[in-house]
Amino acid sequence: MRIAEIHLTPVAIPDKPLLNCKGVHQPYALRTIIEVICDDGTTGLGESYGSIKALEGLRRAAPALRGLDPFHLHELKSRVAAALPEGGGINARTAVADHKLTDVVTSAFEVPCMDIQGKMLGRSVGDLLGGAVRETVPFSAYLFFKFGAHIGQDKDEWGEVLTPDQMVREAKKMVADHGFKSLKVKGGVLHPDLEIETMFKLREAFPHHPLRIDPNGGWTVETAIYVARRLEGVLEYLEDPVAGMDAMAQVAAATSIPLATNMVVLEFDQIAEAFTKRAVKVVLSDHHYWGGMRASTHLGKVCEVLDMGISMHSNSHLGITLAAMVHVASATPNLGYDCDTHYPWVGADVVEGAPFVFRDGALAVPRGPGLGVTLDRIRLAELAALYEVAGVRERDDTLYMKQFDPGYERRVPRW
Amino acid sequence: MRIAEIHLTPVAIPDKPLLNCKGVHQPYALRTIIEVICDDGTTGLGESYGSIKALEGLRRAAPALRGLDPFHLHELKSRVAAALPEGGGINARTAVADHKLTDVVTSAFEVPCMDIQGKMLGRSVGDLLGGAVRETVPFSAYLFFKFGAHIGQDKDEWGEVLTPDQMVREAKKMVADHGFKSLKVKGGVLHPDLEIETMFKLREAFPHHPLRIDPNGGWTVETAIYVARRLEGVLEYLEDPVAGMDAMAQVAAATSIPLATNMVVLEFDQIAEAFTKRAVKVVLSDHHYWGGMRASTHLGKVCEVLDMGISMHSNSHLGITLAAMVHVASATPNLGYDCDTHYPWVGADVVEGAPFVFRDGALAVPRGPGLGVTLDRIRLAELAALYEVAGVRERDDTLYMKQFDPGYERRVPRW
Repeated sequence: MRIAEIHLTPVAIPDKPLLNCKGVHQPYALRTIIEVICDDGTTGLGESYGSIKALEGLRRAAPALRGLDPFHLHELKSRVAAALPEGGGINARTAVADHKLTDVVTSAFEVPCMDIQGKMLGRSVGDLLGGAVRETVPFSAYLFFKFGAHIGQDKDEWGEVLTPDQMVREAKKMVADHGFKSLKVKGGVLHPDLEIETMFKLREAFPHHPLRIDPNGGWTVETAIYVARRLEGVLEYLEDPVAGMDAMAQVAAATSIPLATNMVVLEFDQIAEAFTKRAVKVVLSDHHYWGGMRASTHLGKVCEVLDMGISMHSNSHLGITLAAMVHVASATPNLGYDCDTHYPWVGADVVEGAPFVFRDGALAVPRGPGLGVTLDRIRLAELAALYEVAGVRERDDTLYMKQFDPGYERRVPRW
Repeated sequence: MRIAEIHLTPVAIPDKPLLNCKGVHQPYALRTIIEVICDDGTTGLGESYGSIKALEGLRRAAPALRGLDPFHLHELKSRVAAALPEGGGINARTAVADHKLTDVVTSAFEVPCMDIQGKMLGRSVGDLLGGAVRETVPFSAYLFFKFGAHIGQDKDEWGEVLTPDQMVREAKKMVADHGFKSLKVKGGVLHPDLEIETMFKLREAFPHHPLRIDPNGGWTVETAIYVARRLEGVLEYLEDPVAGMDAMAQVAAATSIPLATNMVVLEFDQIAEAFTKRAVKVVLSDHHYWGGMRASTHLGKVCEVLDMGISMHSNSHLGITLAAMVHVASATPNLGYDCDTHYPWVGADVVEGAPFVFRDGALAVPRGPGLGVTLDRIRLAELAALYEVAGVRERDDTLYMKQFDPGYERRVPRW
């Protein structure tokens, strides 16, 4: 059994004007839907970034994968590396920023290969990863400060969220809708004192929900230590308060709150330094850039060995990604935190039916075979058409922010 | 598909009087052959230790595995742990010495489960581990000082090996017979000056073969540093020169020769300490006590992350173990050293035919399905009968040594 064909379909998905320390989400988030078809007709599904850089990487690697046995995942990685000789050390302000393109592209094709393996066996992907250790996977509510509407559009159903009280309202709706048992705030947006106030108000409204805040490295070390001192005993973890390994280590040394990251540890090569410098206590895994689902289970073991916790990162995504996330989470014994997901913010999908309904904030693990999702070709065609007309080809939150505030500048750290 | 039956068959295999720092190999080495049979008749094979302790652990865990889905390997581990509540921290002078019994028992059943998975798929176990990165797996010649004969028996075909020159002769025969490209000496037997001389004479006779020596922790720190200084530039690595993590760290700090171990790092929990103390540069994996074949691939990744090399350990074993070793080695990209094996010393097997013939010191990866070996019931019955009459129930190299030298005492360190 060999890979015969690969189809790559860039899609645009309507997104909300969600704020972070670099700007605001554009009206569309971009993804690429991947179909890997074997010579016997078995098809595997995948989903990855939709930026030009990712798409180009996928397009350049795809021809090199024809003839590959979908079980030969080490060879998949070698072929991708050979097809993208300059893949290491890509740095650009895209969704692939700071991740090695080879890892991203390998990941993107590993998922459909695992989907194919599962379909051949009549087994779920989770079974290929050692079997599920939990029947449902808990997610956190991913809370954002946000504008009320996109430029030129009507106010969305969430309205404006720019104050602590508005954030509590957003959290209440999110929890009422999906039952989430923990809350994550995308920070670095308002003045740190207002974000501290936000966390205290969330604590008051949700006395038993673990709380996190993630300013995406948007604070100085001084600000981060100040915020951490104010929020001792309030946060379950503090995610990427500052940019850079040494700065993280400085903050970590000054607080008992565990620091989490998806910014200073995004490759296996960075883990030893993080351990040695005691910079990080929780790593957010993400099968899109860690090398795939199998590599994500390796990451789980590495974190266990180094006494680091493991949680899960998310970008704006559709149901194929969500299925893969749930399978990985189900087969990662030491996953100790509710996973992130942007899924409730996304009003579209490319999979058939509505397989993902949060109950008490958790998703049931799809039974398979493979990922356990099937492509809805009408929905795919609609989102592919949207990509053509959306006019967005790169994520650029700063550029879009300037349409709201012409004087806005990208500043890291911001506060 | 569920596990319906498990058969455990202890076997004895004729062994040679091979010396180490604790004594001499008894006339028989003990193993347990494991057959896991599913409700559809699919059978998976495994091989583990044959000591009373291991056998008891296997026997106590086996009933708890009835009804288990052979894909649910995380659950396998949980069920074994529940069946062996005192499994952690077993320490005894058996083949299970210092390894957690739960890990040993989990490993013993994981291999047949993987064999079953492969058979269901018509795929090799290596394919379930991400696919082979090499078509053949290189092994080292495992060289022992030895007596010429067992008590009351005729001289074996290797004769006595108690001097450097005799060791060179042994090495030449081993290399002539199997084509090995690297040489490992079991040390801690002769005075260190004689073992140093042995390594120099091997270097002279085999100028291009990487050389290792492994005294099983039999040296003091002073002796180890002395030997390391004499052998700088001669050894590819020095395995367990001393006992204990801190002693290893002291030696490591005094030499540029990488230290390897299968004595101070035998569980995932010990890796962080070894890294922090810079005690070890090469970890010897062994799927029999690291938790199985999948766990061994995790270990490979952990070592890659911590910039440690990875090699492979062996006890006296048969062809089922060898098949599993070759599959794990084939699917461990960063395996950077030729694997150990006692196989050439063992004049028996339980698998059909003669699937394992070293060519240029390497074995071809079995094509599967599963492990790619089948049980020869006649051979199994013979070795099971031998177990009944052998009169050996525990490995005890020191006790047997006393039959050669009544004044012999177990001493660690010896030199």
